[in-house]
Order: sequence, then C-alpha cells, then structure tokens
Amino acid sequence: MKFSDQSLPVGQRIAARVEYAGAHFHGWQAQPHLAVETAQETLESALARVAGVPVSTTCAGRTDTGVHGFGQIVHFDDPVGRSAKAWVLGCNRHLSDAIRVHWVAPVNEQFHARYSALSRQYRYVILNTPVRSAALAGSVTWYRHPLDLAAMNGAATTLLGEQDFSAFRAAACQASSAHRCIQHCSVVREGDFVIIDIEANAFLYHMVRNIAGSLLNVGSGRQSVSWFESVLASGDRTQAAETAPPDGLYLVRVNYPPEFELPSVPDGPTIVTRAL
Amino acid sequence: MKFSDQSLPVGQRIAARVEYAGAHFHGWQAQPHLAVETAQETLESALARVAGVPVSTTCAGRTDTGVHGFGQIVHFDDPVGRSAKAWVLGCNRHLSDAIRVHWVAPVNEQFHARYSALSRQYRYVILNTPVRSAALAGSVTWYRHPLDLAAMNGAATTLLGEQDFSAFRAAACQASSAHRCIQHCSVVREGDFVIIDIEANAFLYHMVRNIAGSLLNVGSGRQSVSWFESVLASGDRTQAAETAPPDGLYLVRVNYPPEFELPSVPDGPTIVTRAL
Repeated sequence: MKFSDQSLPVGQRIAARVEYAGAHFHGWQAQPHLAVETAQETLESALARVAGVPVSTTCAGRTDTGVHGFGQIVHFDDPVGRSAKAWVLGCNRHLSDAIRVHWVAPVNEQFHARYSALSRQYRYVILNTPVRSAALAGSVTWYRHPLDLAAMNGAATTLLGEQDFSAFRAAACQASSAHRCIQHCSVVREGDFVIIDIEANAFLYHMVRNIAGSLLNVGSGRQSVSWFESVLASGDRTQAAETAPPDGLYLVRVNYPPEFELPSVPDGPTIVTRAL
Repeated sequence: MKFSDQSLPVGQRIAARVEYAGAHFHGWQAQPHLAVETAQETLESALARVAGVPVSTTCAGRTDTGVHGFGQIVHFDDPVGRSAKAWVLGCNRHLSDAIRVHWVAPVNEQFHARYSALSRQYRYVILNTPVRSAALAGSVTWYRHPLDLAAMNGAATTLLGEQDFSAFRAAACQASSAHRCIQHCSVVREGDFVIIDIEANAFLYHMVRNIAGSLLNVGSGRQSVSWFESVLASGDRTQAAETAPPDGLYLVRVNYPPEFELPSVPDGPTIVTRAL
C-alpha cells in the first residue's frame, strides 16, 4: 500500500485501522482520571502531535484490558488538513511498538466507526497443550484439558440468530438492551490450537469471553450442550461459567457497508502451526 | 501427555524440551560474569530448586539474544532421583512465563543434547506488510518491501548440501570448521508472512540470520541470485548482506536418532493467518 501525500481538506472525516497488543494497555477507552495507559489516549496523543491540536477519536469496539485490537477501526475529523501519508507515518513515529496505525482513508461524513459497523468479528485462540507456551505468553489462552470440538460446536450453534444474551453479559454492562444477533460461531482445531470465531452485529460487555468460558466448560466435558442451552435461555449471568481470560481474544475485523470503500484488513493474526 | 510420578534412579540422564521467548533472555548460554538473564541460568536455577543441589545442563543449540527457543532440547544428569512429573511441574513453578519445560524423558547415557543431534531446524518468520505489527512485535521480523519468492527460492537452492559457509559466519564464530550440510531450505508465503525454513546438521554462529539477510536482499531485488551464489562461493563475510534481526527466528526442532525415543515436538509456532 502506498500512502498518498496529497493534503486532505480541513474537517475531512478520516477512518483508520489501528492495531494494538492487549497486554500493553488498560483497554481501549480513555480513563482520564486514572494513571493507566489506554490505547485511545496513546493514539490521540500521537494524532495531536501530528496535528498540533487535540484530536478525538471514536472506535468500533471498546476492547478490555488484555484484549488485542488487530482490526480496530476508528474515525476522527482532520482539524488541520494533513495527507494520509503524514497521518500514518507521523503517528507511527510517535507510537511505541505496541500500537500501530496501518492505514487512514478519507470517508464521507456519514461514516461513524461505531454506528456504521454492520458486524464485528472476534477470534479467541486457545492453546490446548499439557504445558503453557513461553513464546506465546499473553497472545493465547492456555487450556490444559482435552477439548471435545463436536460438543463445543453443538453449543456454538445454539448462539446463532437474534437473541437475548443477558446470560453472557457482565454485571457492569451498560447497554440498554441485551439483544444481539450472532451471525457466525465456529470452533476449529489447528494443531495444538483451538480457535473460536464469532461474528455478531455487536457484542455486550465481556460477551465473547463469557461465551468462551462456557464453551470451554462444554469442551472439557464438565458441562453438556444442554447445560449451555439452558444457561443461554436463563438470561442469568450467574448460571454461566467463569469469564475466560483476555489473552487469547482478538478483535479481528469490523465490517462496514461497501460504499465507504475502506481498505481491507487481512485475516489474522492467528497463531497456528504450519507443518515443518 | 501425562507425566510419570515414578522416581528415576540417581544419576539418570534426562532429556528435556525447553521453550523460551527470545526477547526475555540474553541468549541461551550462561554468562556468569555478566549481570544479564540467560535461558540456561534461569533453567538451571529452577532445576536446582527442584533438586536441592546444583544441576548443569547441555543444550542442542546455543541461541542468541532475541532468538526464540521453541524446540530447544537439553540434557542433564539427575543428582537426586526425582520423577518426570516432579521435574516438569517443579521447574515450571519456579520459572517465569517466558520459559517453560514441556517434558522430560529418561534417556540412556549415550544421549548428548548437542552431539547426538542429527539435525536442527530453524524457521525465520517475516511479516511483509507496509506497516509493522503491534501484536507481533518481537515475534516476527518486519520487512516492508515486496519480496520475490521465486528469486529467494532460487538463492536458497544454492545452499543445499555440504559446503563451506564462511560467507555466512559471524566474525566471533569459534567453530574450527565452516563446513556444514544444509539438507533443506525453502521460502513460502502464507498471507502477509514469508517463512524461511532451514535444516542443517549444525549451524555456525549467526549463520541463519546472515543467510536470511542475504535472502531478503535477493527477494527485494537489490541483489540477484547470481550475487547470492558468488557471496557463498567467496567465503567472505564482508560480501554478504547485513545480519537479519533475531525477532523472527525460531529454533523449532532438533532431530535425534529414533532409538532415543524422545517425545515429539509439535510444528511451529509460526504465526500465520487463517482465513476468517
């Protein structure tokens, strides 16, 4: 990809793909009253250095502490009229290795990173080995017990469609409705890894991690598929399993209507084996 | 894998698979006179806590600072007679997340982690994108320019067989001979990643990183395959390209004669994409 060095008009709305390593940040959302580093504040501080004035951003998915933003999308309005090249290279010069701007793209003012999104895709990567990995610490969730993928996929199927996901919603969730539509949920094995792919119009707070925790309970045989179904039907968070750790969770892609003509986001990253 | 809790005889020779994240250690080899953390000293200190007495280890491949030991193999002689389970679980309790013992196996006293090895397999993982990755910082080598894999494979082929690899040997290399036998060297693309797999009976100091640096020069079109051949033939280190960074380099597997009956080491880890 070549970055254009043509200046954009002042006030131009800009979409950007931002990637960050979860373990380095106290989540996405700025916490101005806490002495913690968030991805949003880190990004906005770099944008402000490029612009010379403050820049505020809106993201597609507010990830938690430890969750990896692989295909995070944000938008902001250019206060000064820089080029795409100036935004990408300038920002990255002011960012640590733990966060990167992959591209920026001018979009019309109807574009909103959060409200224009048609769906979000998350991937939960489990390393299923007797001993945890050293090289992948923080990048995967380690699970020691053998997993039954047929059972996990049986449970995953019950999640599909528009439903009330109160059972998988954190107590602190502030969404007014717990109805969401899950369009895809599958569990596959790749060597020592078990990968949960899930796509929905939107997610509740901790929803993917709560679903992953309960799917692991089914996969390990501690609970059955019918237990999983009854948890979902109960709408009761206390029935579900523990929230799974953030280490293996990636926001991999956000889908928008094609008329916004955003650059693509590659598949992954997923850490899987390749035969030697 | 279940770990046996049967005590081994005192003096039993033990082979172990050790995995470590390169960025956390100043290489494998103990540096007793330097205030740096090495994988060997870290492991030996954990082994000593399990044994109650000092334990010294010998490894298959002395990796540099930043190089990842995925399938590193070591041997040591059990001074006290612990079980496999006590060694694995006890060591891991005393180790940080950056280093793990995956298994231990009793072997006969002919086994030597370094001298019994038939071959070593290394993998060099390049992320070939316009912007570097945040989530994969330290785990891959980033290379921005488009790469011509046909040219890289053309150059890789010239490495095969028993040859003098002086051109790819670091000045500090202490090996008495620069002859090594490369049995396999291939370059493949997986999504945004370019992966160099290389197997040899043994490697010289910095040999894989020097080869990777020169292969990148060919892949980017800055140099030709015939340049690569003439570098190899020259035996002159000053002709070759810069040493490539350690970030993307993994010691993935060490092969031993089957009669030692070592447990297997899985493929990987390689960070590659999987279609969403």
